[in-house]
Amino acid sequence: MILSAERKIPADIVLKGGKVVNVFSGQIHKKDVAISAGKIVGLGPDYHGKKDININGKWVTPGLIDGHIHIESSMLPPSRLAAALLVHGTTAVVADPHEIANVTGISGIKFMLEDSDFIPFDTFFMAPSCVPATTLETAGATLRALDLAELKDETRVLGLAEMMNFPGVLMGDHDILEKILLFGDRIIDGHCPSLRGYDLQAYLTAGIRSDHESSDRLEGLEKMENGMMVMIREGTSAKNLEALLPLVKKGNARRFCFVSDDLHAEDIQERGHLDFVVKKAMRLGLDPITAVQLVTLNPAEYFGLKDRGAIAPGYRADLVVLDSLEKFKVNSVYKDGHLIVDNGALLHFPAGQKEASFIQSKPLNIARLTPDSFRIPHPGGKARVIELMPGQIITRMVHESLKSVDGWVLPDTESDTLKLCVVERHHASGRVGLGIVRGFGLRKGAMASSVAHDSHNVIAVGVSDDDIFRAVEAVRLIGGGLVVECDNEIIAQTPLEIGGLMSTQSIKTLVARLQGVKKAAFDLGCVLEDPFMALSFLALPVIPELKLTDRGLVDVNKFEIVPLFLES
Amino acid sequence: MILSAERKIPADIVLKGGKVVNVFSGQIHKKDVAISAGKIVGLGPDYHGKKDININGKWVTPGLIDGHIHIESSMLPPSRLAAALLVHGTTAVVADPHEIANVTGISGIKFMLEDSDFIPFDTFFMAPSCVPATTLETAGATLRALDLAELKDETRVLGLAEMMNFPGVLMGDHDILEKILLFGDRIIDGHCPSLRGYDLQAYLTAGIRSDHESSDRLEGLEKMENGMMVMIREGTSAKNLEALLPLVKKGNARRFCFVSDDLHAEDIQERGHLDFVVKKAMRLGLDPITAVQLVTLNPAEYFGLKDRGAIAPGYRADLVVLDSLEKFKVNSVYKDGHLIVDNGALLHFPAGQKEASFIQSKPLNIARLTPDSFRIPHPGGKARVIELMPGQIITRMVHESLKSVDGWVLPDTESDTLKLCVVERHHASGRVGLGIVRGFGLRKGAMASSVAHDSHNVIAVGVSDDDIFRAVEAVRLIGGGLVVECDNEIIAQTPLEIGGLMSTQSIKTLVARLQGVKKAAFDLGCVLEDPFMALSFLALPVIPELKLTDRGLVDVNKFEIVPLFLES
Repeated sequence: MILSAERKIPADIVLKGGKVVNVFSGQIHKKDVAISAGKIVGLGPDYHGKKDININGKWVTPGLIDGHIHIESSMLPPSRLAAALLVHGTTAVVADPHEIANVTGISGIKFMLEDSDFIPFDTFFMAPSCVPATTLETAGATLRALDLAELKDETRVLGLAEMMNFPGVLMGDHDILEKILLFGDRIIDGHCPSLRGYDLQAYLTAGIRSDHESSDRLEGLEKMENGMMVMIREGTSAKNLEALLPLVKKGNARRFCFVSDDLHAEDIQERGHLDFVVKKAMRLGLDPITAVQLVTLNPAEYFGLKDRGAIAPGYRADLVVLDSLEKFKVNSVYKDGHLIVDNGALLHFPAGQKEASFIQSKPLNIARLTPDSFRIPHPGGKARVIELMPGQIITRMVHESLKSVDGWVLPDTESDTLKLCVVERHHASGRVGLGIVRGFGLRKGAMASSVAHDSHNVIAVGVSDDDIFRAVEAVRLIGGGLVVECDNEIIAQTPLEIGGLMSTQSIKTLVARLQGVKKAAFDLGCVLEDPFMALSFLALPVIPELKLTDRGLVDVNKFEIVPLFLES
Repeated sequence: MILSAERKIPADIVLKGGKVVNVFSGQIHKKDVAISAGKIVGLGPDYHGKKDININGKWVTPGLIDGHIHIESSMLPPSRLAAALLVHGTTAVVADPHEIANVTGISGIKFMLEDSDFIPFDTFFMAPSCVPATTLETAGATLRALDLAELKDETRVLGLAEMMNFPGVLMGDHDILEKILLFGDRIIDGHCPSLRGYDLQAYLTAGIRSDHESSDRLEGLEKMENGMMVMIREGTSAKNLEALLPLVKKGNARRFCFVSDDLHAEDIQERGHLDFVVKKAMRLGLDPITAVQLVTLNPAEYFGLKDRGAIAPGYRADLVVLDSLEKFKVNSVYKDGHLIVDNGALLHFPAGQKEASFIQSKPLNIARLTPDSFRIPHPGGKARVIELMPGQIITRMVHESLKSVDGWVLPDTESDTLKLCVVERHHASGRVGLGIVRGFGLRKGAMASSVAHDSHNVIAVGVSDDDIFRAVEAVRLIGGGLVVECDNEIIAQTPLEIGGLMSTQSIKTLVARLQGVKKAAFDLGCVLEDPFMALSFLALPVIPELKLTDRGLVDVNKFEIVPLFLES
């Protein structure tokens, strides 16, 4: 390497004549980039390699780094997601594997590590800090500090993942402080929507150093001023770029980065990843080089990835060649000096290591069910009904009279009061949470899914107990996934064999199947833009106002289980 | 801490009403700073503590951090230097202990670690990479990769110190690459004066990430563009601030910091430390907050000191209160939340732990000498004479005829050709290097010193063998130090009992003694501004053009030992 830098021996590859984006100086220089043994060994006017590649007229940036992503949201395992992101110029992500951890604990995290090993893409992890997310639901695993300790030895585990339990931090919860202490010498990510003032200070005092939940400019400003790395999120469900971008200035740009948090496979295929965010940021007025800094040097420095995020001698040759900087159009991608994306297309990509062995756990561990498992006795009086808010993950609690027959609650398509169920699927406990939801608009059949944040029990909505039973049973049998049932028939399904969260298929196949179940839901009369995404958030008891877990209805404002019917 | 941040219990101390410099946002806000258990727990309009301190009208900055200093240059051990720097607002340094390592190897470094432990000041170290500096001199120790390995376990050792042997890096020297590999997961500091172009790239390819040797603006620019942390040096001998400051801009300021490298006790006492550099930078036009960033957040981020360098919740309460930001006048200093400097004066400061035991090694390990040890036979012909260049550490080689008597060379005050000797002092080998120097201007007597870069043998200059013998003998007996001798009498001395490099006295006493020996040298007729500093660089065989070690005269351009007299 040293000899190639001195030009005493030829470099392995030289990218010749490109416009190189320098994230240190904030300038663009026309220079050759010499690569040997996977590293950048020189930048200069006159390098030659065993292979010279003319990229005259093109731009070169460092490989993009996403500092906060939940891989499981893409429904792809790490290796499959890597393949999908590489064509968008991403060469590294820092992932919080808390979805799979909620299902299978440490073994799920180890699967994520193994599946992402030995691939031409860097997948770093943060140890999930909040598994389970609450005590109001049943998760597949509980991770205490002692469990997380063994993750510290993994070289790709960089620290403690988003500390979502900020009330717990503020109350000095012993378990939480133990986890924070354990990772005191590493990076600790935060998650504190709307936390401000003295509470924010208290949260930071614990050693937490980033946040990706700001949606308000003043909130983001306060967090930046208090030393947080403000991760500006632009994902599938949450989009904060427009609100927060005005905060980024030349003198403080190092305190920001762009992340995706949750990004669905369809979005990746249709709009892209960080390439899309950079493009949008430039369109909103950010200068191109600062935009690149926010997805390269800044996350690299924050996470202490000292040989990534820049194009300079001694750095890894993770490089993106662009046809256009303004349009951020990826032409080719080099990972550790190897061409992996050429002309926008992925070249040979190795399969992940452990997919096959991990998926043998199917079918799901659900206790024996019958249609009667979903019956709800009607005691008279009004019920607490979950009302969806279009395009939002918060719900409203409304009080309604429900129809009944023979003393049992009867779902009603007329008033759009359908039955919602959450079936515990980790321990075969037989626990089923039952409630009523308005907003799906199904006229017939049922939808069921093993993706239900954060514990990922099986959630189903339907017009009858029979339909719901058959949909849940189908999810169980395929080892998890998304199912649409109607008239005794499974009309569409997307198997998610890996923990009921991730598919073994390529992104292309997966997206086609996801479009299939979506269309099937529409065919049942569903009026929501994204039926399964809406369903997946109905079991999340930290988002107001009324949610359902396997333990029952949760009044989120009171943070307690409440009965379906009002006490008369 | 968390409870104090929330204001549920009072903080330990609250600094009320100060103008707080925010190195993240680049702004100044009037805020209370709440401190508990040594950490900053909150910034806000309305904190109260067990103790409230009104600092209305004053400024608060983070404690200053010097990213590159050789403690031994101050002739103070770490604990004494810490005391001297605290009053200037410095709360942390990153030191390369290569002077003491050249004398006593790992045990010297351990002394530095121990002496700086348990004091209210953070002394971090880099493992010396080049001990001995060359093969043309005899050092007290040789440190190979295996020796450095045990330092990696020390929590205050952050990486590998300045890699001075850049030719060795470029040639792929095995020993050097081994050291670099050993510290591949840590920070590796550089040292590469005038290295540019392909050679610079090659040097960087090895993983080296900083440099403090740029004296030229374009050189600094190139290094910054190539990803180096450019440490702008402003010390006693080298002053690069004026040349390099124009490089610092809002968009790239994170790539720079201010360091002192070598700083003498007198300079510390008279002008200060980083406070002086910041003040000078502001005078040269740098905005105050960026100047503060360069001595706080930037070195902290570069060295991965994640809870230092900023005023924010969760950071260490290392704080400087200033009477004036523009004049950077230090009023008080807090270290880990404790007031340590009040009204410009140091409060109680504990003594270092190991001073006493370490200094028992005296007297120096020198073989038996007599005045005859310094005799030089005169073979006739011209001699290679070292000619000092006023104010510089480079010398010229001039060819001169020398006087003689009875076949021996005779020093001559008339032509200012005095005798220069370097006596090996580590292994009692009896080796004495002999040469002739012009430029001191002594009319009588001799000066001798155990501070002689980089091997720190005893160096002496004098008008006669008797004078030189007595001066060297005095240095030996006091266990190292600086001595001025005349007419059979030691007229001034500064004992440096710690390895012959550092004093056990306070900075005040030390400076008085140093002024004493300087004055004594002037009294002998010395015409140099800093006689002992000039003497200390005459044994450094890496600085052109002619130098003297215990092994003889070194022609630095040829990098080889040459005889005193020209071959006729």
